[in-house]
Amino acid sequence: MNIDDYMSGVGRRARQASRAMARATTAAKNDALESIARAIEREAAALKEANARDVASAREKGFDAAFVDRLTLSDKALSTMVEGLRQVAALPDPIGEIDGLKYRPSGIQVGRMRVPLGVVGIIYESRPNVTIDAAALCLKSGNATILRGGSEALASNTALAALIGEGLAAAGLPRDAVQVVETADRAAVGKLITMTEYVDVIVPRGGKSLIARLIEEARVPMIKHLDGICHVYVDDRADVAKALAVCDNAKTQRYGTCNTMETLLVGRGIARAVLPPLARLYRDKGVELRVDAASRAVLETACGGDTPALGLVDATEEDWRTEYLAPILSIKVVDGIDAAIEHINTYGSAHTDAIVTEDHDRAMRFLREVDSASVMVNASTRFADGFEYGLGAEIGISNDKLHARGPVGLEGLTSLKYVVLGHGEGRQ
Amino acid sequence: MNIDDYMSGVGRRARQASRAMARATTAAKNDALESIARAIEREAAALKEANARDVASAREKGFDAAFVDRLTLSDKALSTMVEGLRQVAALPDPIGEIDGLKYRPSGIQVGRMRVPLGVVGIIYESRPNVTIDAAALCLKSGNATILRGGSEALASNTALAALIGEGLAAAGLPRDAVQVVETADRAAVGKLITMTEYVDVIVPRGGKSLIARLIEEARVPMIKHLDGICHVYVDDRADVAKALAVCDNAKTQRYGTCNTMETLLVGRGIARAVLPPLARLYRDKGVELRVDAASRAVLETACGGDTPALGLVDATEEDWRTEYLAPILSIKVVDGIDAAIEHINTYGSAHTDAIVTEDHDRAMRFLREVDSASVMVNASTRFADGFEYGLGAEIGISNDKLHARGPVGLEGLTSLKYVVLGHGEGRQ
Repeated sequence: MNIDDYMSGVGRRARQASRAMARATTAAKNDALESIARAIEREAAALKEANARDVASAREKGFDAAFVDRLTLSDKALSTMVEGLRQVAALPDPIGEIDGLKYRPSGIQVGRMRVPLGVVGIIYESRPNVTIDAAALCLKSGNATILRGGSEALASNTALAALIGEGLAAAGLPRDAVQVVETADRAAVGKLITMTEYVDVIVPRGGKSLIARLIEEARVPMIKHLDGICHVYVDDRADVAKALAVCDNAKTQRYGTCNTMETLLVGRGIARAVLPPLARLYRDKGVELRVDAASRAVLETACGGDTPALGLVDATEEDWRTEYLAPILSIKVVDGIDAAIEHINTYGSAHTDAIVTEDHDRAMRFLREVDSASVMVNASTRFADGFEYGLGAEIGISNDKLHARGPVGLEGLTSLKYVVLGHGEGRQ
Repeated sequence: MNIDDYMSGVGRRARQASRAMARATTAAKNDALESIARAIEREAAALKEANARDVASAREKGFDAAFVDRLTLSDKALSTMVEGLRQVAALPDPIGEIDGLKYRPSGIQVGRMRVPLGVVGIIYESRPNVTIDAAALCLKSGNATILRGGSEALASNTALAALIGEGLAAAGLPRDAVQVVETADRAAVGKLITMTEYVDVIVPRGGKSLIARLIEEARVPMIKHLDGICHVYVDDRADVAKALAVCDNAKTQRYGTCNTMETLLVGRGIARAVLPPLARLYRDKGVELRVDAASRAVLETACGGDTPALGLVDATEEDWRTEYLAPILSIKVVDGIDAAIEHINTYGSAHTDAIVTEDHDRAMRFLREVDSASVMVNASTRFADGFEYGLGAEIGISNDKLHARGPVGLEGLTSLKYVVLGHGEGRQ
């Protein structure tokens, strides 16, 4: 098989199908989602059989338990998929909404209509549930989709794709509206991310190394984030109880997520009040603390003989730039809000950053001046999430400033075009 | 001078200045715009002197009259600049606006704040007025700007930059918020469009060959359009008077603009009613008509011995893909709205397309299904313009679907970030 020709064919069919999807009615799209949900319920046994082949092959190739776990389609995973499809069907259809139609002095009316992007490419790794989640969001937003999952999940994804095609056809929509790339050849990804004539946007879902490689090579725009180096800044005017609650949740609620706090900044004036109880709290949960000299001094003074038990490590310059995704936290004492903002804008990854303060002006300055996709006052960074924000769904999180920023739901898969309504007017 | 080092320095200073611009007050930004306006009024003689050096040098190098005309800073051009600065000062400040703050079940409030993009690079050719227009819009939207004009306008642009710097300083804003690249070396452009760490978006203003080259080489995202192959489709159910008015204005109001109609599509059922009067109208204005066989047949039947005078030329496949920017129009008879939409989505450039019809369903289908930045009903394509749309200003027009689409005003130079307001909440 010639990969270039194969992918061009996939792209051409997707572009064609995208036209039909753009004009699809809300009812047809919801019918398709419901039909896919029912097909998954009906074919659960066959899906698990296909998935078992992938799992057996992955085990044979020596993939680790975590990988096999992500790959496995359990009954729970299948019912979560079905529930997800029905949730997306229940979301309002964003497509076709016209906003702000205003009369202009020339006599024309000008507004904007929300429309699909066209063709969305999804590149992901071993989790076959992404096939359904991503297809559902793209379908509801009127896009055609090209799905390129990990080669280890190919049997599972192909089986799921057949059910998606069945659901689309049942609703009178083109099967090509959702296509799974059925080759394990890596060249397929290279083609997918460069065929700008057929693909409007790429959403990569996966580890940092995958995304870094795609950024290098892509010509198609991407909705993506690379790092989540999130900060909490505890301001001198913070409420100590709120500071402890936010810092605990931001670091320890989950360690491996992109919106977990990786660096804690503490105002010099409040360090002695918050660092000792926080250090004890983190010690009890097994979090390693990498501290600057000032934090160490505060902790040694306050905790006396207890500091060795805190297992303090001296932070290096590298620590301020590191996303641990692990029970490790770097801590720095700063001279107030200016230093905190400067640190975040220098070392952060523009993902999610929070201030804890009771001071209104400082809160508002932090919101405005920290150049990140999500900025928070007195709340845990862990809230940066499409469901928590009320988007109803999430296709990914974007750290970029253009197009979508922060958690991306259906709206990020759409665009606004200008509509002009006239009565035969010409321009003067 | 090492161009790489020079441009990195420009970029680094722009990034630094962008922080101050992001937090600049509305009053300071408006003060700066007014100070620049006054400085231009005061230094008109010196500006014209610097410009005269550019003009003399361009004449010496043999540039044509049109080029010299675009390069020349007349009294009229200077007063238009001053007026433009004051118009931008009068626009509402988009920055800092918070929209949609809603409470979530977790107790947090989530909304979005409009913020600057950061650093905007403008690449343009010989017109020095772009220096002021672009700087004004970027300044008002809280961005830092790097301006790279044509080498032939370097003396004019450097003189303007000095006044901009003076105006910024008078308002307490950093001079580096607007920097002019002071080298004619083309490598500066290559660096500008690839230094993603310092530049957030590039707006190229210039001819197609400039933009095509930038698309090839850029790594920084661009707000741009390459072609304006705009269509008017006269539907069978059109009002003939409206059709004539729209088709006349869309083609002949100006020939060299990107929103001028280049291809006229006519429904088969109405061709005999509209083509003959349109052909006479275009003949009287000296527009060359490139027609398909069906259009020719209609015109020959209707006009009889008069057709040679219409100067009909047979259209080729190439004509449907051509932006003439000249008094030339291609004409095709189509079998109704499906064929028209198919033609536009195949051959168009996704810029601006209009339907003339009295039929509501067809109008709405055209609006939804034509995949262009501006779609119109019973109005001339020439209306696709930031001022006509009420944006108050225009930095460019975008044919892309991501981020800005269609005429781009201040909003296109901004981004939305999520703001979260809590009371110490953590995620469950």
